[in-house]
Amino acid sequence: MDFSEKDSVDAVLASFADTPDPRLHEVIEGLVRHLHGFLRDVRPSLAEWEQGIEFLTAIGQKCDEHRQEFILFSDVMGASMLVETMEAERQAQDATASTVLGPFHVVTSPERALGDSVDSLGTGEPCLIEGSVAAPDGTRIPGARIDVWQADEQGSYDVESGGRQPLGNGRGLFTADDEGRFWFRSIVPAHYPIPTDGPVGALLRATRRHPYRPAHVHFIVEAPGYVPVTTHVFVEGSEYLDSDAVFAVKQSLVRDFATVDDAEAAARHGLPNPFRRAQFDVVLQPAGS
Amino acid sequence: MDFSEKDSVDAVLASFADTPDPRLHEVIEGLVRHLHGFLRDVRPSLAEWEQGIEFLTAIGQKCDEHRQEFILFSDVMGASMLVETMEAERQAQDATASTVLGPFHVVTSPERALGDSVDSLGTGEPCLIEGSVAAPDGTRIPGARIDVWQADEQGSYDVESGGRQPLGNGRGLFTADDEGRFWFRSIVPAHYPIPTDGPVGALLRATRRHPYRPAHVHFIVEAPGYVPVTTHVFVEGSEYLDSDAVFAVKQSLVRDFATVDDAEAAARHGLPNPFRRAQFDVVLQPAGS
Repeated sequence: MDFSEKDSVDAVLASFADTPDPRLHEVIEGLVRHLHGFLRDVRPSLAEWEQGIEFLTAIGQKCDEHRQEFILFSDVMGASMLVETMEAERQAQDATASTVLGPFHVVTSPERALGDSVDSLGTGEPCLIEGSVAAPDGTRIPGARIDVWQADEQGSYDVESGGRQPLGNGRGLFTADDEGRFWFRSIVPAHYPIPTDGPVGALLRATRRHPYRPAHVHFIVEAPGYVPVTTHVFVEGSEYLDSDAVFAVKQSLVRDFATVDDAEAAARHGLPNPFRRAQFDVVLQPAGS
Repeated sequence: MDFSEKDSVDAVLASFADTPDPRLHEVIEGLVRHLHGFLRDVRPSLAEWEQGIEFLTAIGQKCDEHRQEFILFSDVMGASMLVETMEAERQAQDATASTVLGPFHVVTSPERALGDSVDSLGTGEPCLIEGSVAAPDGTRIPGARIDVWQADEQGSYDVESGGRQPLGNGRGLFTADDEGRFWFRSIVPAHYPIPTDGPVGALLRATRRHPYRPAHVHFIVEAPGYVPVTTHVFVEGSEYLDSDAVFAVKQSLVRDFATVDDAEAAARHGLPNPFRRAQFDVVLQPAGS
């Protein structure tokens, strides 16, 4: 029997009937149903479908060691944030809210000592970021690992700075002390546009969407026996907090990067006085809870 | 307000509200609804979504001048055939049935004279393919252009033969004569596997699907004032006619490649006797009808 619009889903699902892995089978069934549903709703012409294929191909071709355009596409379509939101509901109701990984976690963060600076340029406004890692009952988690990465005061990550920043700038991997505390020096990050020189940028221009993300610092915090959390700290008052291009803002993650006038603390941390400071206490859910 | 599963579609559609092109807006709205619907149904973990992103990235990275892995993915998911089927319903009910373009229309077919052979190897079973191009009322269409491409008797296209076939082998661009007739020499194509050395091949293996397509010759037939048709002629009796990996078989496109014992005709066409012959009369729909 010829392939038909009415029976297209059944015909394709039949071809996948022998898929041995039940989860893969389930994912493919969902994909076929929604892909065909999309096509039946939108009814692309062949020429439009070719444009779609070219768009997806260009996204893949734009990816390299330091650029992940498909994550960017997932991000601007709200897909990353939806997956992230569903995962968080499943895993960690009592923990610090998570948000998207984003496309810039492509360089291993250099191991740094507590108090070190993640910034080697010295051109931004110095700040101290400090906090603790604890279980929901308040038990501190010594030795928790805190991976951070951020844009600089011009809104660029190391990998997209064209060599202006050395690789690893704005990044650090810290180990919490015996009381589960961490602190490090950085600069106050700026809001920035997601990369717009690829197909995702073209999509944003064609749809008159702005490419900006509010200022933030990325965190992945993990410790043995706990569910890791991938999240951001957003800078209170930053532009675009209410229209993040990737939908990742959660109110519970916004922090005041307050100006502190404390000569003793400044001297102790090797910072000028006054300086900016943000506090971010992280709560991790015990694994299997 | 934080992003939530319940409001995810609305939040993302709001970001696209200013899209100036109404058709683009419509396509994106469908994409957002079905993408989020897929994610809500399947509920991928973050790790699964990363695998999905990696899969799509690998598809894009596999594409090059002679390889279009995203078309292949669209083909094995039945998406190409669904788009093709909807386009055909819209455009050309009285015309020759169309079917998928496939991923091998990546080399411009060499211009050839009527009667020429598209095969320069001489290792396959010689055949004559002949036919006519006409309107639905039977009016012949002189000067119609017939673009053909096919695999050889080993089931390989020129671009995937590793240099065994010169580029352009198995391909030809013909011009119908004053009576809308065309004829050319070739070899009987073999069934073949779609390329399995990329992510789509990995998908087929993981789902225990075979990669084979029944033997066929691709055609694009066009003439000024008519809707072009992209189609195949399938070889009657070929394996996989009932389980084409890309769902493209239509019964009306299957032809007997009959053995002909006709010394005079063989001599006239420069073929050995006996030889194989297939007849394919193409009907094009007038444009705008």
